[in-house]
Amino acid sequence: MSAADFANPFLFHGFPMFFASDNWAGAHKSIAERLLTESTGFAAAYGAGDLDRKVEARFSEIFEREVSIFFVATGTAANSLSLASVQRPGGITFCHSEAHVIEDECGAPEFFSGAARLVAVDGEAGKIDPAKLSAKIASFPEDAVHHGRASAVTITQATEIGTVYSLPEIGEIAAISRQRNLPLHMDGARFANALVALGATPAEMTWKRGVDMLSFGGTKNGCWCAEAMVFFNPDQAREMPFIRKRAAQLFSKSRFIAAQFDAYFENGLWLDLARHSNGMADRLRAGIATSNSARLAWPTASNEVFAVVSKSAAKIAEEKGAKFYAWPIPAAMPELVSESETLIRLVTSFATTEADVDGFLKCLAA
Amino acid sequence: MSAADFANPFLFHGFPMFFASDNWAGAHKSIAERLLTESTGFAAAYGAGDLDRKVEARFSEIFEREVSIFFVATGTAANSLSLASVQRPGGITFCHSEAHVIEDECGAPEFFSGAARLVAVDGEAGKIDPAKLSAKIASFPEDAVHHGRASAVTITQATEIGTVYSLPEIGEIAAISRQRNLPLHMDGARFANALVALGATPAEMTWKRGVDMLSFGGTKNGCWCAEAMVFFNPDQAREMPFIRKRAAQLFSKSRFIAAQFDAYFENGLWLDLARHSNGMADRLRAGIATSNSARLAWPTASNEVFAVVSKSAAKIAEEKGAKFYAWPIPAAMPELVSESETLIRLVTSFATTEADVDGFLKCLAA
Amino acid sequence: MSAADFANPFLFHGFPMFFASDNWAGAHKSIAERLLTESTGFAAAYGAGDLDRKVEARFSEIFEREVSIFFVATGTAANSLSLASVQRPGGITFCHSEAHVIEDECGAPEFFSGAARLVAVDGEAGKIDPAKLSAKIASFPEDAVHHGRASAVTITQATEIGTVYSLPEIGEIAAISRQRNLPLHMDGARFANALVALGATPAEMTWKRGVDMLSFGGTKNGCWCAEAMVFFNPDQAREMPFIRKRAAQLFSKSRFIAAQFDAYFENGLWLDLARHSNGMADRLRAGIATSNSARLAWPTASNEVFAVVSKSAAKIAEEKGAKFYAWPIPAAMPELVSESETLIRLVTSFATTEADVDGFLKCLAA
Amino acid sequence: MSAADFANPFLFHGFPMFFASDNWAGAHKSIAERLLTESTGFAAAYGAGDLDRKVEARFSEIFEREVSIFFVATGTAANSLSLASVQRPGGITFCHSEAHVIEDECGAPEFFSGAARLVAVDGEAGKIDPAKLSAKIASFPEDAVHHGRASAVTITQATEIGTVYSLPEIGEIAAISRQRNLPLHMDGARFANALVALGATPAEMTWKRGVDMLSFGGTKNGCWCAEAMVFFNPDQAREMPFIRKRAAQLFSKSRFIAAQFDAYFENGLWLDLARHSNGMADRLRAGIATSNSARLAWPTASNEVFAVVSKSAAKIAEEKGAKFYAWPIPAAMPELVSESETLIRLVTSFATTEADVDGFLKCLAA
Repeated sequence: MSAADFANPFLFHGFPMFFASDNWAGAHKSIAERLLTESTGFAAAYGAGDLDRKVEARFSEIFEREVSIFFVATGTAANSLSLASVQRPGGITFCHSEAHVIEDECGAPEFFSGAARLVAVDGEAGKIDPAKLSAKIASFPEDAVHHGRASAVTITQATEIGTVYSLPEIGEIAAISRQRNLPLHMDGARFANALVALGATPAEMTWKRGVDMLSFGGTKNGCWCAEAMVFFNPDQAREMPFIRKRAAQLFSKSRFIAAQFDAYFENGLWLDLARHSNGMADRLRAGIATSNSARLAWPTASNEVFAVVSKSAAKIAEEKGAKFYAWPIPAAMPELVSESETLIRLVTSFATTEADVDGFLKCLAA
Repeated sequence: MSAADFANPFLFHGFPMFFASDNWAGAHKSIAERLLTESTGFAAAYGAGDLDRKVEARFSEIFEREVSIFFVATGTAANSLSLASVQRPGGITFCHSEAHVIEDECGAPEFFSGAARLVAVDGEAGKIDPAKLSAKIASFPEDAVHHGRASAVTITQATEIGTVYSLPEIGEIAAISRQRNLPLHMDGARFANALVALGATPAEMTWKRGVDMLSFGGTKNGCWCAEAMVFFNPDQAREMPFIRKRAAQLFSKSRFIAAQFDAYFENGLWLDLARHSNGMADRLRAGIATSNSARLAWPTASNEVFAVVSKSAAKIAEEKGAKFYAWPIPAAMPELVSESETLIRLVTSFATTEADVDGFLKCLAA
Repeated sequence: MSAADFANPFLFHGFPMFFASDNWAGAHKSIAERLLTESTGFAAAYGAGDLDRKVEARFSEIFEREVSIFFVATGTAANSLSLASVQRPGGITFCHSEAHVIEDECGAPEFFSGAARLVAVDGEAGKIDPAKLSAKIASFPEDAVHHGRASAVTITQATEIGTVYSLPEIGEIAAISRQRNLPLHMDGARFANALVALGATPAEMTWKRGVDMLSFGGTKNGCWCAEAMVFFNPDQAREMPFIRKRAAQLFSKSRFIAAQFDAYFENGLWLDLARHSNGMADRLRAGIATSNSARLAWPTASNEVFAVVSKSAAKIAEEKGAKFYAWPIPAAMPELVSESETLIRLVTSFATTEADVDGFLKCLAA
Repeated sequence: MSAADFANPFLFHGFPMFFASDNWAGAHKSIAERLLTESTGFAAAYGAGDLDRKVEARFSEIFEREVSIFFVATGTAANSLSLASVQRPGGITFCHSEAHVIEDECGAPEFFSGAARLVAVDGEAGKIDPAKLSAKIASFPEDAVHHGRASAVTITQATEIGTVYSLPEIGEIAAISRQRNLPLHMDGARFANALVALGATPAEMTWKRGVDMLSFGGTKNGCWCAEAMVFFNPDQAREMPFIRKRAAQLFSKSRFIAAQFDAYFENGLWLDLARHSNGMADRLRAGIATSNSARLAWPTASNEVFAVVSKSAAKIAEEKGAKFYAWPIPAAMPELVSESETLIRLVTSFATTEADVDGFLKCLAA
């Protein structure tokens, strides 16, 4: 491919190559259309309408048991309020050291929990190391009033760095949590991507492996704004209506969330979108694996790809309009990147096309 | 009108008569369509996109000065975070005794403000009495550490009971607030309804009369979910990005709010919708004023009507499918309602039709 | 008595006439001496020492059942943390409209409770009116998520205006609280004064009448700093060690509180001090009742006296060195005070002498 | 020394050997006597009395500039409220990874700060490494709303592990803090011990080196309960009266704190007590340095000594009545302790005697 190729507008026009984040995409057409259809008519506000009921029942079907569902505005809200609902005074929540809750939520989990602290646990591949979790929990004896009190564990599925906990890995974290009666929360901002990566059912990836609460994200996978807290034991959600309202997260026209989920679940759309998104990441991974100017930084299994790219290739891609973020070098991998390279994150979405991927790969090959 | 008339499905079919609340309506077609149009393409997340910028600029035009805009998920969030941004330790916010912030937000304004207290001030017609406000503020001397500290004043426009502060009334409240340097906040959940009721401009009804912060509500007037905080002095909003993010109110796909506002403002749609809604309330008021089985409980000027209705008429209306809420008898008007009567609230919206109103009035005439 | 008499330094020298508050006194000699005695030797910190254990056992004896005891630094802390321990999200605590928790604690009860709101209930003589309490609680239906949620009731014994709930009155408040499962807290900043005024036992004035939690104050009655939370059901105090530590209220040298309580309880010193204090108030009341320049504003039964005094007599008293506070005219008694009069509060303490009282009464007689 | 020696009650009777913590001691005689002297008479409550004023002025003299002083009940309160006073929404406070604020205060610093987070910075000898501090601060860019916002830095002097920041070291931390306008707080729970260890003046060890706020502890050094917040720029303390009152930390009989400080400062008692305490630690260090069954774990300079002791010697000491705590092996020194050894902490106080020290050293020599 010659420099002239890059100047050819035909080649790149229409290839947005937006890999900055899956939340740079808009909404899937079916979901936006459903909002249009639903916009007429009247319905009880604040989650009391028929469509809210229908979607709640749909969640119970999907998870193969009766669950309690609470819509909220953001993934940060879902994480924060879930964790808040199980906190105790002086509480401690254990999370991975790179988790979204501790890195990217501006203290919201602590704010909503009466200042319960997040304690970071290390682990390879973005996943909590079970032995380190055990040791960290043990450093907070039950009655040590000065240290604070172990109160919850949270994992992210898929993780912040594109990896996925296997079902046994989830079970192992859950078993450790259970020993101290710590509720286990899953941040599922990319739940569907992890699910199709594992080929598991929603039940298998959650309560059947010991997860108590789930932040179920739809926004990153094709909705405009659709996040739900899922409680697998409805008894544990009794305080939540008040926690949510006090947190200013109770929508008046709640059915605008319900309508999105209704379309999202219809005919398995949500899984199709995740499969597409993961497939586009596969295509990226395959292309990068064979590239001369880039290599995969570590294996990933969902819709995120981390690549070490030559600075010159990265520059070309940016000039051609590709959008992506540079990523900090992990403390555990100081040798990952040479002087002439850079570490970048590429995220695919329901809206990513083969042309986007191929356009980006062409930049690497330039 | 005979009993047979009520059995006639033709008469009532298609007359939803939903007067429970303006948030029982869905979204205006233009707004839902805009969400569909906007759903394609990519844009920077978290409010950094072009459409966000465009809508922010539109707000500045509408208010005739540079303003700072922050989208949030609910009116409760807009009120709570606005007030939180000006609180001081031990802070006190003065509000009307029937205000939404103190009656219907489950403590959210206090929660987000480090437990700043709401202190109720009485006043007729749902409006803060200026003399009582002065006296109440005076009961919190500046350095009286035990009592807490006057920190803000909030008014609701239109009020919870359908009345509207006149421009001089707003100015009077603002003047009192200024004497103690208390920021003045306006809860504008029904801002547009008040605006067209007064025939004022947005600037006149706010900063030109001394309002510092506004909760600008679009949801009740035809949006799915569109609430914004407006700061008339951008310097005072410097902490807000962090307050909002910590409150889990920063949308990733922020443009789904921006798109709604964009359509809402286009060609004055927002004012048209409010005029329609107020007009439907006028029609209700006119009908009730001449009814034998109902009368207006007090004068209102926006899209809310409060009526004292004979219990038998209310029963007929409910049987015919009308939706409305019984309203508690105001403490100041114990004689308002006789044994055989009930006090009800009727709220019109952009989606209310003349047929709805006339259907309801027919019930009263039965 | 002539003007010359007032100029006679002999008459007033040594009559401090300090009636501003019982916390203007220092500490009783026995208590200060015990602190000196205890100052030698070593003991486990943070409440784990033998003396802490001894005093806790003493509390159980005094209250005739096993209680859980937590020392804190201030009465505000005792009230706030007790109420915090029973709050739920969106919680509401009902208190009298003139209670210390709502008037004089700068929002601390809300701050420690995750912003739970205090709702004022009126009632004559500084005491919650049971019918009004019932009505106010009823205005917060159990599942009304918008309004907040009834969570606790608190009464003050003796009240802020010197009155005392009778045992049946306490029982009546408790019965109403029990109907909604609301824990009943008693602010006992002047517990001993109320106790001797009623001639009741500690058990009779608390748990036997349905009180669940008590702020037991020693500071106003002769200690330097001795406040304790008393939980009559230790199971309900399980979170308190963490609530207290997180609130920065766990003393390292906890025995300096224990030592004060140890001396306070020895040989019934605490009751003797309260009897003395109440007796000095009786003496004041008797003198004022026969005064030409003053009268009792309302009947009181503890160590607080409220008097309507001619402004000229008040001025003389102040010139002679008497210390007392003017008191705001109660809203319910607008006619209480004429133009030429003023309402004052007089508080006696363990350190008040007959000479102080008589000196003050002489001022009134001048 | 033979086993018979240990059975000799003469040898150990009267040698309490209490090295568990300096807060296991009581109060110095002069301080307890001052409380007795001060117990008579009346004084304005809540810190408005003459003695409060006198002590505040004394603080200004000691620190060679006008300072603002606020008494509180505990060191945890002093740390938490100081840091709360400078927090911003989403705030981050940087502290050493072993600091008291993050290890032993049950989340109080976060609780009082609206959930501002503590971020640990490593460093040898219990002291923040300046380069690591710079790097950590840099990881929170000023406007990165997702990460939270650098808001304060706190150091402990003397540190938790008995070391002392030199004056240049304090200045270096301050310079880094200043670059981002982060207020620098010093936890001075053992301020006097550090001061005499350095031979510095109070001014030199604080504001002259860039410290903005100090938690000045008296409790561990001979008071019953005397902790004060010191603000070197009184303007920065304007919110503190309300922060403290809302935190339930405003004592009514504030002069009981003032009296302790008054005696504490008289004739340099506070420095004498710290010198004695440090001297006893020197004696311990000297003895351990020459012991066959123990060695110093690391150099310390205040009243704390960390020793690696043979398990047999530790057992003998415990059997003889010595009180001390085992200490966790520092992560950075995994090889510190062999199988047959244990790491212990020994803390001396104003009340430690040479006999205590020598008795303990005899145990090691047994």
